[in-house]
Amino acid sequence: MAKPTPSLPKGTRDFGPEVVRKRNYILDTIRGVFELYGFQPLETPAMENLDTLMGKYGEEGDKLIFKILNNGLDEPDKQESAREGFEKVLEGRNSTSLTEKALKYDLTIPFARYVAMNHGQLTFPFRRYQIQPVWRADKPQKGRYREFTQCDVDVVGSNSLLNEVELAVIYHSVMTRLGLYGYELRINSRKILSALAEICGGSDKLTDITIAIDKLDKIGMDKVKAELAGRGLQPEQIQSIQRYLEIGGTNAEKMQQAATLIGHTDAGSRGLEELRFLLDHLTGGNHAPGTSPNLVVDFTLARGLNYYTGLIFEVKAPSTVTIGSIGGGGRYDDLTGLFGVSGVPGVGVSFGVDRIYDVIEALQLFPDAVHTGTQVLFFNLGAQESKAAFVLMQQLRGTGVRCEIYHEAAKFDKQFKYAEKKNIPYAIILGSQELSQGTCVIKDLVRGEQKTISQEVLAHQGF
Amino acid sequence: MAKPTPSLPKGTRDFGPEVVRKRNYILDTIRGVFELYGFQPLETPAMENLDTLMGKYGEEGDKLIFKILNNGLDEPDKQESAREGFEKVLEGRNSTSLTEKALKYDLTIPFARYVAMNHGQLTFPFRRYQIQPVWRADKPQKGRYREFTQCDVDVVGSNSLLNEVELAVIYHSVMTRLGLYGYELRINSRKILSALAEICGGSDKLTDITIAIDKLDKIGMDKVKAELAGRGLQPEQIQSIQRYLEIGGTNAEKMQQAATLIGHTDAGSRGLEELRFLLDHLTGGNHAPGTSPNLVVDFTLARGLNYYTGLIFEVKAPSTVTIGSIGGGGRYDDLTGLFGVSGVPGVGVSFGVDRIYDVIEALQLFPDAVHTGTQVLFFNLGAQESKAAFVLMQQLRGTGVRCEIYHEAAKFDKQFKYAEKKNIPYAIILGSQELSQGTCVIKDLVRGEQKTISQEVLAHQGF
Repeated sequence: MAKPTPSLPKGTRDFGPEVVRKRNYILDTIRGVFELYGFQPLETPAMENLDTLMGKYGEEGDKLIFKILNNGLDEPDKQESAREGFEKVLEGRNSTSLTEKALKYDLTIPFARYVAMNHGQLTFPFRRYQIQPVWRADKPQKGRYREFTQCDVDVVGSNSLLNEVELAVIYHSVMTRLGLYGYELRINSRKILSALAEICGGSDKLTDITIAIDKLDKIGMDKVKAELAGRGLQPEQIQSIQRYLEIGGTNAEKMQQAATLIGHTDAGSRGLEELRFLLDHLTGGNHAPGTSPNLVVDFTLARGLNYYTGLIFEVKAPSTVTIGSIGGGGRYDDLTGLFGVSGVPGVGVSFGVDRIYDVIEALQLFPDAVHTGTQVLFFNLGAQESKAAFVLMQQLRGTGVRCEIYHEAAKFDKQFKYAEKKNIPYAIILGSQELSQGTCVIKDLVRGEQKTISQEVLAHQGF
Repeated sequence: MAKPTPSLPKGTRDFGPEVVRKRNYILDTIRGVFELYGFQPLETPAMENLDTLMGKYGEEGDKLIFKILNNGLDEPDKQESAREGFEKVLEGRNSTSLTEKALKYDLTIPFARYVAMNHGQLTFPFRRYQIQPVWRADKPQKGRYREFTQCDVDVVGSNSLLNEVELAVIYHSVMTRLGLYGYELRINSRKILSALAEICGGSDKLTDITIAIDKLDKIGMDKVKAELAGRGLQPEQIQSIQRYLEIGGTNAEKMQQAATLIGHTDAGSRGLEELRFLLDHLTGGNHAPGTSPNLVVDFTLARGLNYYTGLIFEVKAPSTVTIGSIGGGGRYDDLTGLFGVSGVPGVGVSFGVDRIYDVIEALQLFPDAVHTGTQVLFFNLGAQESKAAFVLMQQLRGTGVRCEIYHEAAKFDKQFKYAEKKNIPYAIILGSQELSQGTCVIKDLVRGEQKTISQEVLAHQGF
């Protein structure tokens, strides 16, 4: 019988040894910073109840949720209700008799569910981080996968802007530890966008304005203006928006221009106050050495509209690569209201791990220490020799050196080739002569040098 | 509108901060040993194609696979084939028009799929480890979950028994690093069970004998004998099996008795040879100090029948807890034949992470260092004070101390209570007096002591 050629589901990936190590370097760096900043780890299951997830991501988002078929549908007592459930699914509705669980789509809703379920036990403000895979039935394309890792850090149960300051410094700390000194942390406040809408004819224009502004980078000012006109904005309103979008200069100059334009509105003045708090804590003389994020006030930053209410963030990769945004986030008013627990405001940001990986790869910034493969291959020259080599290897492992022994007695050539393919830098050879003398030969496979030393010395002094 | 009370799918768990840290302590210990022994990490996706998984776990296992419903079934052009597919599923068959992906059920089959897909690129013997969640629609019960972590280590592409020796020493190294000195590593060979079947009327009796033997612990000798009789074995055959099961004494004595009983058969002699190789490498004078596993030859060990062909392993928790097996594995002949690539034998073992967690918890062996929460809480006494405190905190973080600052100016009581609830051992207080003097107060919250030191000293010398 012909065996099937195995394959992977579309949009999913295997991570081989080198990739796992590089990913872990990034994740461990981020995790280390989170812990240093007093955040606590949380892990939630891959599966959530379908009703926990549905209706939270908009109509388009809901369609991308991977649903899990109930088990045992072929049992006679389940077939009838399963059939009814299936007909509902064909109508685009849900049915717990066909599917009641789904794979999580992001880390935010499961976090909200966790806080709502446990809010009696948690100490607020609750500072948590979460690094886990999520799943989306998106059309796979370059850099977009159906299974990918999210990496979120949030503080909930506090309105204090000090939390925003903390998150800005976390970005700085992670980016510089990864060597991405040229990153930019762009900031804006949703309140300022509200103020702009207010001076342009009312808050019902907020969505129209934001959607158009969001395209500025791609389509340019003229087309943005045309789009605004198409969305029913009047010429003098469009002129205000253009003045707003043309705000430029240093952060201080931008703040000044924005104050002139929207500072007289309540929302505008509060939004500028938020930005000023952040700038005040993190630039000028008020910061510890090396802890000042590369803050860039960017009034064109919008970051979708769904739930942000205050400061918003976006991290741009160093301009030497063309990858763009590698993280973002912002403040939201009500995390857990969806689950019946109100009064839990928060702020959070996330790191785009796959894109950060691509940036570090492109800039060749992965350190050599990422390679944690075998350091020493013990050659296998026969039953007696390999037994002694094994004992010596165990002693060397006891000193922390990563070793392995070639699995069988084989020609030198074959064993050298194995070491070479696996990038193992040293070989230790223990033949009958060394065995009788209590020595071994250490071969530096990179330089091609070798020396003979006592087994005793190697075992106790390590490598 | 009433909000739903959120809940978790049956058999799944949230891991809060303390649990994540304890689990990571175990996983990091295991991972550290794997790396020390020259094994390389692999990660495969949560989802596999359904045809990669189906038919690999027996009829009962297949039923426990979580299948993922195809997306977009409500689109008009998909409805008809979805309906046909659904009818097939009701008959207990599969249909790619309804479901073509599933959550992985173990790490072995995805590993086999990976090796089959990449065998041209891999260097053999390929030593890989894999630590990832798997999913099974089992009936949830104490200690059994629908999402749980597996932790596997395998060498494939080699018949050498040195690999078994390595895996035995890996068990020893992990168990002793975790403080589980009283563990036992029980060993047997499937060849010896085959030899027993051979002297009891032929290899077709192997399954009957193994199923009965597997129950010895639970039902005792008399009932095992009754079961064997019920399965058609003759009195003299049952007598041989009883003699086999009554083999006892030291490892050497057991080997001696087994040799008398089944050593004359080909399978028996080869099985004993395998055990002898392991014992010879790992007990007596032939091992490095502290590296001798607690090997116990156990001829009653069977470990299921599906694919093991040589040495088999099972790890018992220290007898001071009643948890039983916390790991196991063995040699298999043909990992990737199912995927059209033959000639890849291997040997592997796994660690039962959830059970190991329970054992360490029961024996109170989690080290204090597992708690990596915040070490210092900076009190917040107002806008100016907190700004200065923030700068000082950043400097202290720069020395590696895990800090946070209370999110808002509040009464001392409230801030102390927060520190207490979060088990934060130190508070640093920076009031207007300290601000003007360039000092701060460090309070040891456990001992109730405090001292005043210069901010300069704290910033540069750390904590």
